[in-house]
Amino acid sequence: MSELRRDPIIGRWVIISAERGKRPSDFAREAETPPGKGCPFCPGNEKLTPPEILAYGEPGRTRDSKGWWLRVIPNKYPALAVEGSLSRQGEGMYDKMNGIGAHEVIIETPDHSCEIPDMSDKQVEDVLWAYRDRIMDLKRDIRLEYILIFKNRGAAAGASLSHPHSQLIATPVVPKRVREEVNGAKNYYEYKERCGYCDIIKQELSTGQRVVAENENFIAVCPFASRFPFEVWVLPKAHESDFEDIQKYETVNLASLLKNVTGKMNRVLDTPPYNYLIHNSPLKEPRLPHYHWHIEIMPKLTRIAGFEWGSGFYINPVSPEEAAQFLREAD
Amino acid sequence: MSELRRDPIIGRWVIISAERGKRPSDFAREAETPPGKGCPFCPGNEKLTPPEILAYGEPGRTRDSKGWWLRVIPNKYPALAVEGSLSRQGEGMYDKMNGIGAHEVIIETPDHSCEIPDMSDKQVEDVLWAYRDRIMDLKRDIRLEYILIFKNRGAAAGASLSHPHSQLIATPVVPKRVREEVNGAKNYYEYKERCGYCDIIKQELSTGQRVVAENENFIAVCPFASRFPFEVWVLPKAHESDFEDIQKYETVNLASLLKNVTGKMNRVLDTPPYNYLIHNSPLKEPRLPHYHWHIEIMPKLTRIAGFEWGSGFYINPVSPEEAAQFLREAD
Repeated sequence: MSELRRDPIIGRWVIISAERGKRPSDFAREAETPPGKGCPFCPGNEKLTPPEILAYGEPGRTRDSKGWWLRVIPNKYPALAVEGSLSRQGEGMYDKMNGIGAHEVIIETPDHSCEIPDMSDKQVEDVLWAYRDRIMDLKRDIRLEYILIFKNRGAAAGASLSHPHSQLIATPVVPKRVREEVNGAKNYYEYKERCGYCDIIKQELSTGQRVVAENENFIAVCPFASRFPFEVWVLPKAHESDFEDIQKYETVNLASLLKNVTGKMNRVLDTPPYNYLIHNSPLKEPRLPHYHWHIEIMPKLTRIAGFEWGSGFYINPVSPEEAAQFLREAD
Repeated sequence: MSELRRDPIIGRWVIISAERGKRPSDFAREAETPPGKGCPFCPGNEKLTPPEILAYGEPGRTRDSKGWWLRVIPNKYPALAVEGSLSRQGEGMYDKMNGIGAHEVIIETPDHSCEIPDMSDKQVEDVLWAYRDRIMDLKRDIRLEYILIFKNRGAAAGASLSHPHSQLIATPVVPKRVREEVNGAKNYYEYKERCGYCDIIKQELSTGQRVVAENENFIAVCPFASRFPFEVWVLPKAHESDFEDIQKYETVNLASLLKNVTGKMNRVLDTPPYNYLIHNSPLKEPRLPHYHWHIEIMPKLTRIAGFEWGSGFYINPVSPEEAAQFLREAD
């Protein structure tokens, strides 16, 4: 079982996952994606993965066989696992607990090489709906405090398999970055008596210079303090703190905006590796007046180096206004 | 001039450095190191860099010519620059200020391919002494709040030139990660009435399982909550909050430990790309009872992906105990 450890000074938790453990010589400098035939996420290879948790597919299909169009499985090398008890304990001055949680893979499509911009609208809606379904199921486990949904596309963005997939990690503590964001949002709300993200949306719509795209329910912007070149955030226009409250008609508009934005990125940046993640409210703090869920999309164009590690400060060589203009005009 | 911008929710500052600006098509996926002959850091090519700020060299040598064994220059593409005024201002709900600061390069040796483990003791001592000299000089500028010294070695760790060099960035705000660390250390001190880092050193020396190397003045350990495989911290054994208070006899022991630890990393991990950085106390908070300067060394073996970006949580596939053992035994 992996172990969660807390830095005694800064309070940062890390997951020591030695089951994924490697000898020093095992660290490949570049991740490799296997050829399509040996891909464990391709139809026909269902037996290569752990048993599925959820699938959308043809009626009458049997579990762990073909006929699905979306499939959710446990990660074969989970950072955190469901079995066991938390058992928080000390080790001298240090704090640790068992690596309890969940680590799942959402296989977005049976088609090995169909990325989001090329999927049908319905397929992307199903991906979003699967995110929601998994959150609804996992939030019943009272040991869990947070669920982070994310996607790594491309080896440089950390993907070890090229078949389109997202991941979900549920943690028994609220992650530091989420806690900071929720607390920051709360401070803003207490000072202004308004949601900070609602204010951002209002200001961005009024100036327009950082808007990438929008529709009835969602807006995509390059944030004012973008950490990375061509970073894009997607936010619901209405105040919503919980992703899983999304309605069917909203997933239609979110899917269409996601396809649009990732397609623009591919055209402007020549199909870059990227990460995206959904920032949602903590599981035990639903319907917050001060928090506003959103998706952060980060193309991987620059390298994080000593300065960023040491400072938490990012150097971004492209202004968000310029990035937004390039993306806006790419059609 | 670059611009500092603050995220209105999380309070994170970023540097928008559009002078480094690139067209979308300019983003090379991998950094390239130029051949030795065109290397601007090699002796004889002094005119290819901005005029030097400091050099250690032969007596009677003229500025910006050969004869140096260590040279400090302004970064040709600075993230922050000395000229101008801070001029903090708003832009609607957002906050920004001019990119005032300093960005320097410490060319560690005239020898293009001599890395730290192969340098003479004296050469490494000079590198450390140059760090100190630059801090002493820059801290007279009252606009500056923090100086971060760091090194990127290898393209995968963010280095764009292969000639051995470190960098220094001075910022007009205390960076978020440093502020968190200093505040965390203060909380620990207030609760325990002891320095947390002094406690770490005591516990690590008593168990020994995470100790990589030590000598009279310094200790190298794999921290209990290591974010990265084979992460190593080097700390002075005596309580010291300010790096620039280092004494000559201490630089001898620090240089010897740094050479030892980076040499071990090269042997165990086959000369990995790495970053190191010095965490020092903020310029306007000298001689803190609760803070303890240290060096963090992070070999670049894994990729940071969506989960880490979204959570601030790190997944480390190698336990620090195992990493320390490999490093300890590599001689």
